[in-house]
Amino acid sequence: MRERFQALAAIGKTPGGGVTRLAFSPAALQAHRLAARWMEEAGLRVRDDAAGNLIGRREGTGPAIVIGSHLDTVPDGGAFDGALGVVAGLEVVQRLVEEKRGDASPLEIVAHADEEGSHHAGTFGSRAMLGEVGEEDLLGHQPGREPLAAVMRGAGLEPTRIGQARRERTGLRAYFELHIEQGPVLESLGIPVGIVTSIVGIDQYLVRVPGQARHAGTTPVAARDDALVKAARAIQVIREFLLMRPADLIGNVGSVSVSPGAMNVVPAEAILSVEFRSARASSLDEAGNWLVSLVAEHPGATVRRTLREHGCPMSAELTALLESVARSLGIATHQMPSGAGHDAQVWGRHVPAAMLFVPSRGGISHSPEEWTDWEDVIPGADVLLNAVAALATAD
Amino acid sequence: MRERFQALAAIGKTPGGGVTRLAFSPAALQAHRLAARWMEEAGLRVRDDAAGNLIGRREGTGPAIVIGSHLDTVPDGGAFDGALGVVAGLEVVQRLVEEKRGDASPLEIVAHADEEGSHHAGTFGSRAMLGEVGEEDLLGHQPGREPLAAVMRGAGLEPTRIGQARRERTGLRAYFELHIEQGPVLESLGIPVGIVTSIVGIDQYLVRVPGQARHAGTTPVAARDDALVKAARAIQVIREFLLMRPADLIGNVGSVSVSPGAMNVVPAEAILSVEFRSARASSLDEAGNWLVSLVAEHPGATVRRTLREHGCPMSAELTALLESVARSLGIATHQMPSGAGHDAQVWGRHVPAAMLFVPSRGGISHSPEEWTDWEDVIPGADVLLNAVAALATAD
Repeated sequence: MRERFQALAAIGKTPGGGVTRLAFSPAALQAHRLAARWMEEAGLRVRDDAAGNLIGRREGTGPAIVIGSHLDTVPDGGAFDGALGVVAGLEVVQRLVEEKRGDASPLEIVAHADEEGSHHAGTFGSRAMLGEVGEEDLLGHQPGREPLAAVMRGAGLEPTRIGQARRERTGLRAYFELHIEQGPVLESLGIPVGIVTSIVGIDQYLVRVPGQARHAGTTPVAARDDALVKAARAIQVIREFLLMRPADLIGNVGSVSVSPGAMNVVPAEAILSVEFRSARASSLDEAGNWLVSLVAEHPGATVRRTLREHGCPMSAELTALLESVARSLGIATHQMPSGAGHDAQVWGRHVPAAMLFVPSRGGISHSPEEWTDWEDVIPGADVLLNAVAALATAD
Repeated sequence: MRERFQALAAIGKTPGGGVTRLAFSPAALQAHRLAARWMEEAGLRVRDDAAGNLIGRREGTGPAIVIGSHLDTVPDGGAFDGALGVVAGLEVVQRLVEEKRGDASPLEIVAHADEEGSHHAGTFGSRAMLGEVGEEDLLGHQPGREPLAAVMRGAGLEPTRIGQARRERTGLRAYFELHIEQGPVLESLGIPVGIVTSIVGIDQYLVRVPGQARHAGTTPVAARDDALVKAARAIQVIREFLLMRPADLIGNVGSVSVSPGAMNVVPAEAILSVEFRSARASSLDEAGNWLVSLVAEHPGATVRRTLREHGCPMSAELTALLESVARSLGIATHQMPSGAGHDAQVWGRHVPAAMLFVPSRGGISHSPEEWTDWEDVIPGADVLLNAVAALATAD
């Protein structure tokens, strides 16, 4: 398992020690091909679906138990986010196949496409599998970049066939995902396994602030309508709003794109990426309304929601199973919400789903400094193995 | 002349009515090819030099009189900035060739490469012709883009041969440039022709503000080191500095580039483009020192000067010639400094140089709204024609 993890970490490695495998990029496709080879070596039937999800399946009777995560990363992200869950899930399925345990239920390991939303919105692959992808997802794009449909075509996929990725829910028994925590809680408690109770909802917005392009050498500063100056003020105000809000809301301005972006031209347009997260839908609505009112203060400015990812409680049945397995193995656990979004929240809207966290050093993620000691991976993987085995033989 | 101007304006036209002909782009090269055809039709000997400057020459005896401007634009800029001077200059040379006037001096019309500095620093082509380009110009690049040398290779030029573009000063008698004012002065005075007394100096800087990449869903806002939040503050502070300075300094923050730039990652790096302009070298030094002290307040932040374009007085001899020609034609003029940089300031450091301005509606430039009524072009072109004719026959 560790060798596989390291082989994946080498694909898309950046000079600063991070990993860049944007969804559908050559690096991401290479990682999928490597994982597909391992799945075949483990005796699984392997296929890519119409959304670019990679699926390895061991047949059985009744609905399938699915273990999933993703192999794509944010730009210059870490090696653990996503890849660890795919490697651990593959290990679990392979062990169960080899040990002839759990041969009642079909078992699947899935590497989801574009969990990070590099081209439009996150959890694209799982949303396609659960029938949640519409045309706006395919036409969507990041500011100044290609739409997702064009990116998919570049990776050899035909976006109009996206509906073929959809799975029948009757064929699906449960979904499990192991993932790094990406926060500081488990490390600070000294507990090796987190059991996720719910996943926060996420709203993402693009805010467009207009200005007027002028020659910067001949137009007095006081006479300008400078889109970047207004955007800079908005960044400050959004930060102050988040600092004043109760602990149930978190947010980010992750990028600003300036047009025309030349040294000697007064900025004519700034586009801000704004994200809010909360376990409470009402808090997300309040934040969205506040953002709309902020934007309304700037004539001509617009705000558009590009993603509404609903929060999702995890399955009480599966969470109890994970707890009882951990107890029997003598592994300490901590129940906690997830501030990060995951494919598990998409699955959880349709199928009983559960998530395990392993500790992140310093709570750092989406960064080259992302790290989990290998001895901190094993307890989580053990709980996952035994829970899936118990569920597969119980049915 | 007007038909030629309109043919050029159609090359690189944007949906919003602007023009994008970034230096060395297919659109810019297409504009050069069209101008080259006109130069050949006018009976000129035409060549591209090693820097990508397009030169049309009518031979004669003694040093040459050069008329120049440029055909590249800023992103989504206007149709007049640069192109008007090339079209007017070509018209002047063609008339003098056809009318067999001024056959004593060689005459040249030059479309300079990369005046706007789309790839590194401005007035690249004229600096190459006057021997001011060093290796750092070729390795320089805009944040996140290719270095100039790679862009040149993409346009079929070999950057290591840049030295071949250099001209002997003994072969150069005078330089003239007609350009739109890009400011509101001539329009507000109701005067059709500006005669430029001096051109401001320009210093350009890249400021790098570091932060720490963190998962934005799991890292509390108060605990972040957010590069974009710090950059937003710097943008405000730079604006306040410029508003408080005496009228001899102007500046701009034209772009900010954010890494990694994802919705769900705390920004780890922001790079700001900062420009200062002044006719006084001491004011530029003060502004640069102030910027260094601002950057010093942020641990790990760096500032690098990417361009120092010295200001330049225009030739008193040629300015007097323009004044006297205008007076004899009954055309009112206004003497004024130029807040914008031009190839004329590079020429002016080596060769007697002069500039004519024609009015810009609303003072707008570097924008799709850039406009000069055609009747406002004619007086400036007449002054240019008669001044060049007088100089060519006087020697």
